[in-house]
Amino acid sequence: MKTTTYDTVRALEWTGEVLRMLDQRRLPDDQTWISYDDAPGVARGIKDMVVRGAPAIGVAAAYGVVLAARAAYARAPSDWRTAIKPDIQTLAHSRPTAVNLFWAIARMEKHMAGLQGDPVPELMREAQRIHDEDIAWNRRMGELGAALIDPCDAVLTHCNTGSLATGGYGTALGVIRSAYAAKRIQRVFADETRPWLQGARLTAWECVQDGIPVHLLCEGAAAHLMKSGKVSWVIVGADRITANGDAANKIGTYSLAVNARYHGVKFMVVAPSSTVDMKLAHGSQIPIEERGSAEVTHCGGKRIAAEGAQAWNPVFDVTPAELIDAIVTERGVVRNPSTHGGMDALFRQQK
Amino acid sequence: MKTTTYDTVRALEWTGEVLRMLDQRRLPDDQTWISYDDAPGVARGIKDMVVRGAPAIGVAAAYGVVLAARAAYARAPSDWRTAIKPDIQTLAHSRPTAVNLFWAIARMEKHMAGLQGDPVPELMREAQRIHDEDIAWNRRMGELGAALIDPCDAVLTHCNTGSLATGGYGTALGVIRSAYAAKRIQRVFADETRPWLQGARLTAWECVQDGIPVHLLCEGAAAHLMKSGKVSWVIVGADRITANGDAANKIGTYSLAVNARYHGVKFMVVAPSSTVDMKLAHGSQIPIEERGSAEVTHCGGKRIAAEGAQAWNPVFDVTPAELIDAIVTERGVVRNPSTHGGMDALFRQQK
Repeated sequence: MKTTTYDTVRALEWTGEVLRMLDQRRLPDDQTWISYDDAPGVARGIKDMVVRGAPAIGVAAAYGVVLAARAAYARAPSDWRTAIKPDIQTLAHSRPTAVNLFWAIARMEKHMAGLQGDPVPELMREAQRIHDEDIAWNRRMGELGAALIDPCDAVLTHCNTGSLATGGYGTALGVIRSAYAAKRIQRVFADETRPWLQGARLTAWECVQDGIPVHLLCEGAAAHLMKSGKVSWVIVGADRITANGDAANKIGTYSLAVNARYHGVKFMVVAPSSTVDMKLAHGSQIPIEERGSAEVTHCGGKRIAAEGAQAWNPVFDVTPAELIDAIVTERGVVRNPSTHGGMDALFRQQK
Repeated sequence: MKTTTYDTVRALEWTGEVLRMLDQRRLPDDQTWISYDDAPGVARGIKDMVVRGAPAIGVAAAYGVVLAARAAYARAPSDWRTAIKPDIQTLAHSRPTAVNLFWAIARMEKHMAGLQGDPVPELMREAQRIHDEDIAWNRRMGELGAALIDPCDAVLTHCNTGSLATGGYGTALGVIRSAYAAKRIQRVFADETRPWLQGARLTAWECVQDGIPVHLLCEGAAAHLMKSGKVSWVIVGADRITANGDAANKIGTYSLAVNARYHGVKFMVVAPSSTVDMKLAHGSQIPIEERGSAEVTHCGGKRIAAEGAQAWNPVFDVTPAELIDAIVTERGVVRNPSTHGGMDALFRQQK
């Protein structure tokens, strides 16, 4: 299988009893799994970035709801719908930007509504459906996105959008997996993605696992790379896409989009429908998480910045729809969203 | 003095016998000085980046020529002009991009031509003149550049262009020093500047030494910062400016220039005449150094990238003249070089 699908990595494993997360803070040095048997633990794993990546956060939260229901039903069999609420609040407050978290929780809550008796078996099946669907959607997006790429040397990606960021296979990195398998690209350039180094630590690791040639670069070198003519597309994921087609994604994405337009390089956003938030009209309404300055002033556990210097650490930025050439979802592709009514054609019923 | 000039740091010290370099690889953790008593040592110090920054490299090379002359005259008093050649070649091959290196060596060689007897005292005076002039030019550029800035909150800079990168005071950071002293800016945002982290390690350290409020950010956050409206200018140095006004500078500068234009933020390049290379017509003719991949795959001595991943590590990029709003030299300011004949108005005699 490996030689045809380039897909050997998983970030999350549901055992039937506990949710296991591959600790992404320790990759690529160590492959350590952490088991969570309750929802506050899952929320902590999301907040502390044991797992990260919008779709993976959604899948983890769905399993978190199963664990919350198990605890609530054990404590209060007749009133578990009330007893579960604090745990669901805790899950919902783990991180603010990725809408997949809220989407997964809302879908699990909707499923709860019709349940009789012990809710756990049914909720477990629903969480597994969310997980399986995410992988299937990624494969579909991989096909759709790869079909947009004329055979070329290379593409550029940012952050990690692979199996580690999703239920499996990946969004932008799924497109890259599919394009490489179809021989439409020969290799991938990957931003190292400071401060958390998702590119250097995670994307490079996934590519090496699957035998896809990967070249890291510092974000500062991306414009110079585009000018060289080596990359035909920038391909990224998203943490939230608003109705007009604006896309929040890892800090640094917006700079790539501005540079891609300047250099005539195409810009593709790849995200499942769980990332599309039709309740928000524009990207300016997306809450942007800021994390502590230590992520910038330190690297690999060591202080790199001069003592006394402050750091500003916004985690996401918003790329406006007018800089995006294609948004790939499992429902289909929106080309030039700013001139084609944003996400309405594919998602108008969802509002 | 400190409260009015914000200028307490020096990278190079000539004792009369040896050239001492503050080891910038170990900043900000340690302030270690290394003494060099011969030209090959100085060349090694430049190559290994004990000292870096185009004007500082020029000053160091000038003192290197003094050390070369001392050794040559001791070995061959009657034929020191021949004996010095291998050392001068070694100095000239230390790094390729910054033209200040070649400019300083050429100026020292020109000065050699008329000398009688022991050349060392006269060459020492010439090297000290180059050093003193560089500081004076930086102060002049500080005034000229600061005068371009309407009072505002903040500016953004990249890499290190301060006292550590020059004879003293700095080019872009000299403008920032002057603008802060004149209360035209309240603070400075500084890119951390991967892979070598000159911003986090050096610029932040200099600003902290001199009490200038500094906020670090990852390069990926610069576009998001510009969109926020917090910065009115991007101010950078240069390693070589060609006749048409194209400017080579630390990797990541070009991306900032593209983003500055997109966001309506002004873009200023600050460099002394020793950085202007009128022999080259366009930036595409500038040799761009690529360094080893370990600078990207490692940070603070620790491997951060997955084993098996390659890295691409160009050290400089070229910002085209049409993205530059002002080039500040000690001879004056060139506004919009692409529509005003490049550097010709100030440098036409130098060709």
